[in-house]
Amino acid sequence: MYVTKIEPRVSETDGAGHINNTTIPIWFEAGRNEIFRLFTPDLSFKNWKLVLANMNVDFVRELYYGKEVKIHTWIGRIGNSSFVVKEEIYQEDMLCARGTATYVNYDLKRKQSQPIPDEIRDILQTHMMEN
Amino acid sequence: MYVTKIEPRVSETDGAGHINNTTIPIWFEAGRNEIFRLFTPDLSFKNWKLVLANMNVDFVRELYYGKEVKIHTWIGRIGNSSFVVKEEIYQEDMLCARGTATYVNYDLKRKQSQPIPDEIRDILQTHMMEN
Amino acid sequence: MYVTKIEPRVSETDGAGHINNTTIPIWFEAGRNEIFRLFTPDLSFKNWKLVLANMNVDFVRELYYGKEVKIHTWIGRIGNSSFVVKEEIYQEDMLCARGTATYVNYDLKRKQSQPIPDEIRDILQTHMMEN
Amino acid sequence: MYVTKIEPRVSETDGAGHINNTTIPIWFEAGRNEIFRLFTPDLSFKNWKLVLANMNVDFVRELYYGKEVKIHTWIGRIGNSSFVVKEEIYQEDMLCARGTATYVNYDLKRKQSQPIPDEIRDILQTHMMEN
Repeated sequence: MYVTKIEPRVSETDGAGHINNTTIPIWFEAGRNEIFRLFTPDLSFKNWKLVLANMNVDFVRELYYGKEVKIHTWIGRIGNSSFVVKEEIYQEDMLCARGTATYVNYDLKRKQSQPIPDEIRDILQTHMMEN
Repeated sequence: MYVTKIEPRVSETDGAGHINNTTIPIWFEAGRNEIFRLFTPDLSFKNWKLVLANMNVDFVRELYYGKEVKIHTWIGRIGNSSFVVKEEIYQEDMLCARGTATYVNYDLKRKQSQPIPDEIRDILQTHMMEN
Repeated sequence: MYVTKIEPRVSETDGAGHINNTTIPIWFEAGRNEIFRLFTPDLSFKNWKLVLANMNVDFVRELYYGKEVKIHTWIGRIGNSSFVVKEEIYQEDMLCARGTATYVNYDLKRKQSQPIPDEIRDILQTHMMEN
Repeated sequence: MYVTKIEPRVSETDGAGHINNTTIPIWFEAGRNEIFRLFTPDLSFKNWKLVLANMNVDFVRELYYGKEVKIHTWIGRIGNSSFVVKEEIYQEDMLCARGTATYVNYDLKRKQSQPIPDEIRDILQTHMMEN
């Protein structure tokens, strides 16, 4: 499991006084940096591979400015060319949001999906968890 | 159905050359302004009602900077205190993203959900569509 | 002068109840789309020319969610390879923010600035104003 | 001097392949969290004090996704009710952006500026630097 710590920003709140709901996908994406690095080791956009097919977020509890946030990121399922990232956001040890992101390994030049290479699949499997 | 036109911004793209996937929930939220106004006619945050419980997005096709985008927003289902917004994004008449957002009518002071008032329910029903 | 209309988004407010100050540069950039198009007619990032050297913003009055905003964008000064964009944001006919942005016409492959072509200079000059 | 470390996010880049220029004010604001806490110890928006009057940014060098960024934040000048924050962004030990932010200590209910309290002034002074 990958753990990413984030310090909320004023600009990430909204007028209702909490973290705006559109900030959550931004934080979840920030928690996937190490997964992006698996597919594109130099993190250059020229060699970018992963395309997001679906995102789903359950908003469980309000998040606030002023207290550190932890993103938990792991792998839920691995298919032939796609896989599911599972992710949770905690603040003060309480679950605040939970989501999934389905990525496809994609050749952006040929415009077609590609099987996930075995060496990446092996690493992804070490980050699989049941829940 | 509500239709909202948006001109993409450079800041909404990412290094892969397209609109970043975290921009989509921001645009979908922008398309719900008239729904927010139904529940909070003066749009003041002091009287804010709606809390997002779940968002789901299918990314169908890349979106680009430089071409106007249309958000289609309608109502999919109305429960006692919650309802589902359905939404699509089109660019050059092609479907690029499709989502749902589940909102709860919530009393932020008493911290409990509230039935949707009949006069709002009636208006929401005029924006219901099957798909 | 270019005029761009923007409908504020919930995600652009912050906990203090107004539009967050980091939203202002985003709106100003949105107001420069037609200037970007002058230098890169197809608006493709492969052919992108303009690099921002400086931005300055005076925050004059709070901006609010719920009321349309107008961006005024014009040209203040044209040098050999650089030029200054001047810009203002109005809400309900009141000036709320005022800024300048200094852009350099830049060859991103050769990594050096380039003179502004005469045909673009002529068009920029039609958008010059004293203030 | 305050130092804040930030891991760039994909959503903070733009189609030109670098960090978008509108991300810089967001990062600078993130670097001011400890200054906000001086004026509003519980960081609640109900008790918020500081209003931004001016921001100025020099863009010195492109910033990239994939490499940690450091924000340096210090105090440049303290007036009666206002003060100037000075700030720089470094990536791989190279200066990439430099800015100032002028804040006013403001009573949001009475809508008037207030002198900076002596105990806060004393702490701000320990963060003053010449440059």
